[in-house]
Amino acid sequence: MNRHDTSTALRIGVAGLGTVGQGLLRVLARNAGLIERRCGRRLTVTHVSVRDRSKSRDCDLAGVTVLDDPLQLVQADVDVVVELIGGLDTALSLVLAALQAGKPVVTANKALLAERSDAVFAAVETSGCALGFEAAVGGGIPVIQALREGMAGNRIDAVAGIINGTSNYILTQMGHQGMAFAEALSEAQRLGYAEADPSFDVGGIDAAHKLALLAAIAFGMPPAFACVQVQGLDTVQAQDVRLAQELGYRIKPLGIAKRSAAGVELRVHPTLIPAEHLLASVDGSLNAIRIHGDAVGQIVLIGAGAGAEPTASAVIADLVEIARARNSSLPLGQPAAQLRPQRVLPVSEVKSAYYLRLRVADTPGVLRAITSILAELEISVEAILQKEPREHSDATLAIITSVTTESHCDQALARMMELPFTQPDATRLRVEYFDD
Amino acid sequence: MNRHDTSTALRIGVAGLGTVGQGLLRVLARNAGLIERRCGRRLTVTHVSVRDRSKSRDCDLAGVTVLDDPLQLVQADVDVVVELIGGLDTALSLVLAALQAGKPVVTANKALLAERSDAVFAAVETSGCALGFEAAVGGGIPVIQALREGMAGNRIDAVAGIINGTSNYILTQMGHQGMAFAEALSEAQRLGYAEADPSFDVGGIDAAHKLALLAAIAFGMPPAFACVQVQGLDTVQAQDVRLAQELGYRIKPLGIAKRSAAGVELRVHPTLIPAEHLLASVDGSLNAIRIHGDAVGQIVLIGAGAGAEPTASAVIADLVEIARARNSSLPLGQPAAQLRPQRVLPVSEVKSAYYLRLRVADTPGVLRAITSILAELEISVEAILQKEPREHSDATLAIITSVTTESHCDQALARMMELPFTQPDATRLRVEYFDD
Repeated sequence: MNRHDTSTALRIGVAGLGTVGQGLLRVLARNAGLIERRCGRRLTVTHVSVRDRSKSRDCDLAGVTVLDDPLQLVQADVDVVVELIGGLDTALSLVLAALQAGKPVVTANKALLAERSDAVFAAVETSGCALGFEAAVGGGIPVIQALREGMAGNRIDAVAGIINGTSNYILTQMGHQGMAFAEALSEAQRLGYAEADPSFDVGGIDAAHKLALLAAIAFGMPPAFACVQVQGLDTVQAQDVRLAQELGYRIKPLGIAKRSAAGVELRVHPTLIPAEHLLASVDGSLNAIRIHGDAVGQIVLIGAGAGAEPTASAVIADLVEIARARNSSLPLGQPAAQLRPQRVLPVSEVKSAYYLRLRVADTPGVLRAITSILAELEISVEAILQKEPREHSDATLAIITSVTTESHCDQALARMMELPFTQPDATRLRVEYFDD
Repeated sequence: MNRHDTSTALRIGVAGLGTVGQGLLRVLARNAGLIERRCGRRLTVTHVSVRDRSKSRDCDLAGVTVLDDPLQLVQADVDVVVELIGGLDTALSLVLAALQAGKPVVTANKALLAERSDAVFAAVETSGCALGFEAAVGGGIPVIQALREGMAGNRIDAVAGIINGTSNYILTQMGHQGMAFAEALSEAQRLGYAEADPSFDVGGIDAAHKLALLAAIAFGMPPAFACVQVQGLDTVQAQDVRLAQELGYRIKPLGIAKRSAAGVELRVHPTLIPAEHLLASVDGSLNAIRIHGDAVGQIVLIGAGAGAEPTASAVIADLVEIARARNSSLPLGQPAAQLRPQRVLPVSEVKSAYYLRLRVADTPGVLRAITSILAELEISVEAILQKEPREHSDATLAIITSVTTESHCDQALARMMELPFTQPDATRLRVEYFDD
């Protein structure tokens, strides 16, 4: 029946048959011949584990053994375990058990890798088995490979990108359609982009997981999820999106990892970037990652950051490496003993330009008072825009500052809030320029 | 003196110490410790070959044996040969000799790989040695790896991109500065972007070499350089760049490889693309490659397509793979015997939308006559713009057509040229839309 030598097939056990798992089985079936020619072996899903056998699924399970407990996959006749169940505890048990049994692992679970990095990466090295996680960052974009292998000759200075598609979709809708944040979020949920509990997406947690992994590879440091500064998307109002556009900027949800002599910056926040920058035109649910290396300069990678088949594409890339026995057991690009913890800059030391938006009474001396506060803290005004919306008696003032420390910026804002003619609902967003 | 175990160092012989060769030695020296941590071995250039020993060079040659004949590198104590001499004959001898001697090869020579592909890739397989050519396409952009490994699970439908930085620089200058072609070309030459003989760049040959390699990996076919249709950049005038902008497009130098049931299209030409497309804002000497796969959708990679250190970055990526013994001897992603020649569509069958620019007398009935010709050939007008430049008595007419065959378009243009009121200097450029 099977014209292929199954003795050489790579037997795959898949834990979790949600959207991505079903996409994986579909793509593996659809492109089976092509993939076999590319890696010299057939990739065959022999076992899957599911939480609910009764669910109907959009993939062919003929000839596949269906198990209830993901941990049973480790004992089954599989050569590699694909972890797509998500979450921390069961996923960790599964990954550790597979590695201990000498079976390579492919996972899309950024939370697991970022929050249980010590346990996972130590187990990988002890086992000598491969751990592939291309699907954990940037969906179908082969960014892990580009950073770890493709730029291996470079000292990486900075990684910055749109690494949460839901957040990008929401900000795009706010910009293009003039939607309010809540409205854009509902729209994203309706379209299935956002999780039912959107806090991971719009709260920046998901992006922080991914950023910690990118920074670990880029800077040769242990993943430092707990040190990532996070500002949620709900700090952006529709008027900020409009004002930013008028000032020549776009607001994008960025994860930013930078290295300087002082240490490493790790932060996730809605960010103003110049409208003409490449990342500014990456709209909708697309992801984009910009990596800067000392030799290569700027590399930008753009593509679908989520979705069943894009994520499956990344999982298969890892499986093909394992099938070709090319995948090393250095998932972070270096042995763990060589990873060097880096000083992560505390918030107060992080320097940035800022966008400040205030509501002020329309009386004489306002601008003088505000610019005096900035001048006293040695902050220059790069751009300023005053608007008098019809519905308010107050004026709206948007300011782009020079680069300053966060503590100076916060002091300035606090003093402005003490002025008799300012309203308490000011907003502060960071502005990022890229040296292209 | 050397704290590293040199017995495990990867000993590298570099043929050619031009711009890229010097950049390679500089980056390897500057990032030596970093690269050693990443691949577990030191990468050491032990031998180089140069044509002229007396030239001063911007890299440290202390401890490096300098040879006159690149072929001497094969007999020297090196583990891998890096071919950076360019050209066809000597480079081919060197690569074949190295492979026959069991030494892996890294090369940036797209002309060699595209025009001598049979000899080179057969020798790779016979030898079982690795051949890395990341530097041959897209400079520092890890596009070969992304396509061959990162998207290995996909059926690739299309690869399109800005793969000649000089051409992109020239068109960008024509667009931003209103320069004429010749002026922009001189500027590029002055800045060292263009070769002294610019025909490889602006004639599209360089891009055709690269496109043949990308298509070989994408479609699993032998490189088909001879079948690539090429239209040079000199067919674009400054007025075309302006008219395209007014119509909502940008003109970019694209290499396009597409697959359909009818066969494969391989073409290199200046192309109108919608102004809002990501590729439209990739300016200056940057390269960008868009790959479309059935699972992952659209992936776009952007970065420096040339230059000493970006190209060195790609060479080092290949060296690191070889040092890690990860690099397989399947440079095109499949054994040569499995590559399937594909029917390459003849020009007459290629379908495209077109931009036509004509000079016509300003008399009644002109538009009717021209649109009648189009209608008879079942070509619709998607957009039309008529201009009356002050310096001419004639009017300039720019038309964006619907998608049609090249033969229909040429027939239409020929008939238009027969009309009594058209001037003979019409221009025809292709228009490309992307399904994102």
